[in-house]
Amino acid sequence: MKECIKVGLLGAGTVGSGVLTVLEENTAEIEKKVGVPIHVSKILVRDMKKAKELSEKYQLTDKIEDIVEDPEIDIVVELIGREHPAKEYIAAALEHKKNVVTANKDVLAKYGKELFPLAEENKVDFMFEASVGGGIPIIRPLKSCLAANKVTSVMGIVNGTTNYMLTKMSQENMDYADVLREAQEKGYAESDPTADVGGLDAARKLVILASIAFNTRIDLSDVLVEGIDGLDLCDIEHGKELGYAIKLLAIAKNNAEHGISVCVRPTMLPVSHPLAGVNDVFNAIFVTGDAIGDAMFMGRGAGKMPTASAVCGDIIDVARNIIHKSNGRINCTCFDEKHLCSLENMMSPCYIRLHVQDKPGVLAAIAAAFGAQNVSLKNVVQKSKVKGVAELVVITYDVSELNLQMAVQTLKALPIVEKVCSVIRVEDHDLE
Amino acid sequence: MKECIKVGLLGAGTVGSGVLTVLEENTAEIEKKVGVPIHVSKILVRDMKKAKELSEKYQLTDKIEDIVEDPEIDIVVELIGREHPAKEYIAAALEHKKNVVTANKDVLAKYGKELFPLAEENKVDFMFEASVGGGIPIIRPLKSCLAANKVTSVMGIVNGTTNYMLTKMSQENMDYADVLREAQEKGYAESDPTADVGGLDAARKLVILASIAFNTRIDLSDVLVEGIDGLDLCDIEHGKELGYAIKLLAIAKNNAEHGISVCVRPTMLPVSHPLAGVNDVFNAIFVTGDAIGDAMFMGRGAGKMPTASAVCGDIIDVARNIIHKSNGRINCTCFDEKHLCSLENMMSPCYIRLHVQDKPGVLAAIAAAFGAQNVSLKNVVQKSKVKGVAELVVITYDVSELNLQMAVQTLKALPIVEKVCSVIRVEDHDLE
Ligand SMILES: NC(=O)c1ccc[n+]([C@@H]2O[C@H](COP(=O)([O-])OP(=O)(O)OC[C@H]3O[C@@H](n4cnc5c(N)ncnc54)[C@H](OP(=O)(O)O)[C@@H]3O)[C@@H](O)[C@H]2O)c1
Ligand SMILES: NC(=O)c1ccc[n+]([C@@H]2O[C@H](COP(=O)([O-])OP(=O)(O)OC[C@H]3O[C@@H](n4cnc5c(N)ncnc54)[C@H](OP(=O)(O)O)[C@@H]3O)[C@@H](O)[C@H]2O)c1
Repeated sequence: MKECIKVGLLGAGTVGSGVLTVLEENTAEIEKKVGVPIHVSKILVRDMKKAKELSEKYQLTDKIEDIVEDPEIDIVVELIGREHPAKEYIAAALEHKKNVVTANKDVLAKYGKELFPLAEENKVDFMFEASVGGGIPIIRPLKSCLAANKVTSVMGIVNGTTNYMLTKMSQENMDYADVLREAQEKGYAESDPTADVGGLDAARKLVILASIAFNTRIDLSDVLVEGIDGLDLCDIEHGKELGYAIKLLAIAKNNAEHGISVCVRPTMLPVSHPLAGVNDVFNAIFVTGDAIGDAMFMGRGAGKMPTASAVCGDIIDVARNIIHKSNGRINCTCFDEKHLCSLENMMSPCYIRLHVQDKPGVLAAIAAAFGAQNVSLKNVVQKSKVKGVAELVVITYDVSELNLQMAVQTLKALPIVEKVCSVIRVEDHDLE
Repeated sequence: MKECIKVGLLGAGTVGSGVLTVLEENTAEIEKKVGVPIHVSKILVRDMKKAKELSEKYQLTDKIEDIVEDPEIDIVVELIGREHPAKEYIAAALEHKKNVVTANKDVLAKYGKELFPLAEENKVDFMFEASVGGGIPIIRPLKSCLAANKVTSVMGIVNGTTNYMLTKMSQENMDYADVLREAQEKGYAESDPTADVGGLDAARKLVILASIAFNTRIDLSDVLVEGIDGLDLCDIEHGKELGYAIKLLAIAKNNAEHGISVCVRPTMLPVSHPLAGVNDVFNAIFVTGDAIGDAMFMGRGAGKMPTASAVCGDIIDVARNIIHKSNGRINCTCFDEKHLCSLENMMSPCYIRLHVQDKPGVLAAIAAAFGAQNVSLKNVVQKSKVKGVAELVVITYDVSELNLQMAVQTLKALPIVEKVCSVIRVEDHDLE
């Protein structure tokens, strides 16, 4: 039996330093759980001079070869982030038969299809629990605990920044620009918030979740992405009155007949839905499977220590595999062909807010325009009337994405319609 | 490599038949995930004649030896329930070097300390994801994903029957007796509901959870147990007015200084707490760790298919270990000595409802009685006054279990106190 498991850490930033803290503070328990101690034997930093303090305790290097070519190192933990050179470093580590643990959703979403086969060829583990939902256990539960299920849907609040912003907008009636400024001041949003508010960060995580849930390789280009940057406070308010909360949801569905749909978008959820109560920077992933029914996993989706919790959980799991010589025991499970659902078959109810001229016959014309695209209306509410313009809120029954888009085009072309202000899908789901 | 993994199933009742359904319906996916097919090669039934239909598809037996002594069988899945002979059958299987999967909390809570070492000696897996929270992944997340954490607390709604009853009481103002009758009619409560409403079922699950979370062997006798059988509807109503929901919580805390406390009892939770929104037969487990902070796992805590989901997840995990010759890779982790917290150091706020004589000086006398036991009061509300008797509701600040019990004794002895009607602990916990 090995005397100790050796880790090479790439990057000692927010999460990397959290990993060092967890491994230090819980050394004794971790050793008992694994059977042997886990040592961080080398750390890759960008600038050796800047990392003076770290060098008192750890051996540092600024050359990736020092780690991937070190025959003593068992596990390479990649926490430098972004696509490059992270992807190349991970590939090099796998090629040198190192087990790899990462939190890097950017690399996984884009290069997963190259890296997983590489891990398999080299019979090593490639783990990434922290890449989705930060500290929340979700990758391993999907791969193990729920492995006997046909998963039919995964819906997640997987971006803390936007959930914080939506919570503030909803609870404090702050508008989008103000709340973004506050989030940036508090450090919850980056100075360039595009990836968060535009939905790209959530889309990357959805690619990872959906690929595992549906046993096929989903690509970033498969995801329909809409962010919260266009969201108007008044839609949150109207939603509330109708019993809905608006969340930025990453939604993956697998319809046995029509195939897989993946999208990220602001979504209205009945307030009774468990995801509707997930507020602030908390994340949650709501999974539905044929055997388990509905289940939800909630927790901190980011932050130094929660993310380090997940990374260290992976390190422990890899270490157990090393001890039992069972690395590669859970392979990539993307064995199914990908069948994407067409826009005709992506169904959901929808909320539409529009400004129309306030004159007789308008409602009938609107209803006719919807009707022509086979869209049935569940609810039409006139919200206000200002200077001859009425604000209408329409809730539809299930409508296909295609019909919805065509109905919106038709509405926009009607002379009596001044503006189609917002189109927000609704997820109505009774707990299973 | 083995050509197929062979399962011997003990008991084809509710969960057992669910397991057969899941393994049949999802055969193809499961085979791809494991690498080889999983076959149920024998089923133990009590009465061969009653099991005619089953015998068309499966080989049946009414002798346990036919299964535990069959050299072809890799995994024994125990789903006969109750303590005996389930415990003896599990022990026999382990002794014959069979991996064991079970959903049997009764056996685990009482005989875990005998069975885990047996599994270890024989280098086989002993898995029990379904024993707590039905389909909800919680055992494996605690043992793997959160393994790097010092877990400080686990609070769970782990009994669906009582959660259904409390939800009905709260939402429909039904009183205890009516709601119990309805739950029995719907099949949510058994004809003898004692184990559920009295808290024993939750206590057994807590023993399992706390043992894993705190790396030590908790016994059923360590758990302070109080059921919902004494619960009065008016306490639910008063709680609501004060912003609390009442849930039957299984609570395990590990205080670095004072040790471990484990209890099952009706508890007031702020309505904003994620557990407060878990309704009907849903279960949820709320875990706090030093690295992850707060996380919650929610889903169906019982039922044929959800429970089968967890059992089959275990079967797949064992099968992967068999393929990789790594059975026993996650050992029992009860390596720490047990330090139980004394009643003096178990602290929480408390709600107390009492009937007192309606005369001057009463409030002062009550406050003095609390004060004498070092109990500070946060809130005193007079709820009603009938025929010279006033109903008071008192919310205390943090009070130790010991002081609380003494204060209640003192109150009961006061001539002005007609009755101490209810004493319900409060969990005030800001999300971490
Ligand atoms: N932070 C979170 O809450 C969180 C949550 C989930 C997942 N993640 C993921 O975790 C990963 C790390 O995130 P983080 O927040 O820890 O980022 P971070 O604070 O920016 O840390 C990255 C560290 O890596 C170093 N680094 C970057 N490029 C390097 C290179 N080529 N060679 C050597 N060192 C290099 C950086 O050094 P310099 O400072 O010198 O550039 C920095 O110390 C990312 O993939 C992120 O998406 C983070
Ligand atoms: N049901 C749930 O939702 C749920 C949820 C979580 C955990 N569990 C646990 O899962 C286990 C099974 O529960 P269940 O609901 O499936 O119980 P069940 O419906 O009563 O099924 C038990 C089956 O085992 C058979 N059996 C009992 N003793 C036997 C013996 N000595 N030899 C052969 N067969 C025997 C019974 O046959 P007879 O009918 O002939 O007696 C019956 O078919 C229990 O440990 C339970 O605590 C259940």
